[in-house]
Amino acid sequence: MYLTTRKVAVMGAAGAIGSNVVQDLLSTGTACRIAMYDPYAQGLEGAAQEIHHCAYPEAEITWTTDPGEALAGASYVISSGGAPRKEGMTREDLLLGNCEIARQLGLDIARYAPEAEFVVVIFNPADITGLVTLVHSGLPAMNVTTLAALDSTRLRSALAAHFGVLPDAVTGCATYGGHGEKMAVFKSGINVAGVALTDILAGASANGRSLSASEWEAVKDAVRGGGAHIIKLRGRSSFQSPAHQSVAMLRARIECSAYPWPCGAFFADGPYANVMMAAPVAFSAHGMVANVPSGDEEDTAALQDSYSHICALRDEVIRAGLLPPVGEWGAINARL
Amino acid sequence: MYLTTRKVAVMGAAGAIGSNVVQDLLSTGTACRIAMYDPYAQGLEGAAQEIHHCAYPEAEITWTTDPGEALAGASYVISSGGAPRKEGMTREDLLLGNCEIARQLGLDIARYAPEAEFVVVIFNPADITGLVTLVHSGLPAMNVTTLAALDSTRLRSALAAHFGVLPDAVTGCATYGGHGEKMAVFKSGINVAGVALTDILAGASANGRSLSASEWEAVKDAVRGGGAHIIKLRGRSSFQSPAHQSVAMLRARIECSAYPWPCGAFFADGPYANVMMAAPVAFSAHGMVANVPSGDEEDTAALQDSYSHICALRDEVIRAGLLPPVGEWGAINARL
Repeated sequence: MYLTTRKVAVMGAAGAIGSNVVQDLLSTGTACRIAMYDPYAQGLEGAAQEIHHCAYPEAEITWTTDPGEALAGASYVISSGGAPRKEGMTREDLLLGNCEIARQLGLDIARYAPEAEFVVVIFNPADITGLVTLVHSGLPAMNVTTLAALDSTRLRSALAAHFGVLPDAVTGCATYGGHGEKMAVFKSGINVAGVALTDILAGASANGRSLSASEWEAVKDAVRGGGAHIIKLRGRSSFQSPAHQSVAMLRARIECSAYPWPCGAFFADGPYANVMMAAPVAFSAHGMVANVPSGDEEDTAALQDSYSHICALRDEVIRAGLLPPVGEWGAINARL
Repeated sequence: MYLTTRKVAVMGAAGAIGSNVVQDLLSTGTACRIAMYDPYAQGLEGAAQEIHHCAYPEAEITWTTDPGEALAGASYVISSGGAPRKEGMTREDLLLGNCEIARQLGLDIARYAPEAEFVVVIFNPADITGLVTLVHSGLPAMNVTTLAALDSTRLRSALAAHFGVLPDAVTGCATYGGHGEKMAVFKSGINVAGVALTDILAGASANGRSLSASEWEAVKDAVRGGGAHIIKLRGRSSFQSPAHQSVAMLRARIECSAYPWPCGAFFADGPYANVMMAAPVAFSAHGMVANVPSGDEEDTAALQDSYSHICALRDEVIRAGLLPPVGEWGAINARL
């Protein structure tokens, strides 16, 4: 009935994302043994009561304000436990506060859940909080990821709306690099109703509609502003889509199945070394294997730019003392 | 991949319950063709965008501020489109405002979705709003229901907590009659870890624990105050559990499978005639068949009391002109 009966720890479970993650783990039939953690006891109890009242068969739901109790014996961890992004804030505004939370999450995983097989970090700026969690957790890089799908699903939605087709008719959408204003929105690989986006940009049409260079720029701008747009419309940052896609990532990891969207992945070497960033991945029984994104010259230049931006954020966190200098990572995480 | 590709209209889809209903319809694999309606355009667009960004395969999600467009061709309708209950309000405080919304919902269904096979009304006081919707909709009684599960799932949660067992170890929990302070919490039929609650109340123990008469009264009070308790803990009325159980009801209706909780059902005759109230039901291809709840003398007296309370609320709504007198219902709904 459920894909796994192994323990999933959901950190930040009183929040909008976290409580939705718990529901979605159960509704999708992914997991039924869930420990809910949040420092906010009252809201946590309310969220846990709601999940109990949902009456999922075979569910074993516990809740605790002790992160060690939540993490103990957990095979999987999903953490949305940062401060949410408010209207007018960029993801980077959240940087240092959330990196302190990420550092503590990493240390808690190292202490209480050293056997964790898959950790999904959701809170922003996720590239950096995921990296900080990874370095401090002592886990192999293939066990720690960040939610990086939403820019790509927003790209698909925007293109589907422009061309008047169902979302499924748009394939190959991906943004790589950072999950921030400097994300690299790739055009290579996208097809709309069977027509390559590069051909469309060269004058072809799909479903009877064209896409000018300036319209494509507007689509990319809409994707970059997609999270802020949700805040403007709903008065709160997105929570359903991050929750559902985090669960979808865990599902793919457990099933070792294809996951169609980028995931945050650490690169130890190569052109994008020593950061965590959105990349195409494959899941195997050993964990997540990341590939270097491939695109045309313009896409690659955008990715290089995004990489530089992530490196700058990373270095800011290193200067703040929340992460050791790159050369010393091996001393606190021998598996990197 | 989904249980049905027929159209589901979700009314009130910008709200916490409605947007969660849409997500849960998709996550549970129940339905993929969903029309989202809400009068609040901005929030509706935000909720719809979020669902698009979830990227459910094969999903066809539309949104509209026109109820006729949402309902046209819908086989199923789930409506949470009332005003939410705030801290300190009883469900009855909401009565007349929400009954006006229910009357309009019924008229809209009669006009735009006369072939609807299953309508689930969630907004409070659900017994009365469901009845008002039914009378005005022109649908057969077996096609219209209200969410009535949560008092029963809360009863199960409270007993599981008291006895220190998993929720699944407590079976047969049901509250019948009204979904309000006057609900009838039945003890007949409940088993805890295989021991009948009536035996426990007579001195037996389950999982090594007893339940005194005063503790049982406290459990019943906790169930009656369960919704208010969630508001106190979370600062908002429950939304995950009503959404999930509404979807579970629709699933059972489509599958013609067993649904383990009470549903709101209209009785045309018998001891509980001319109201909609929580009752045990079975689903068939023809719709929902309701049975008269059976319990011991005390349970039955509580149900009679609850029935009288629903009749009084119904008569208040009749006096307000939102529902014709009982004898005239057949003139506006020939199938009652």
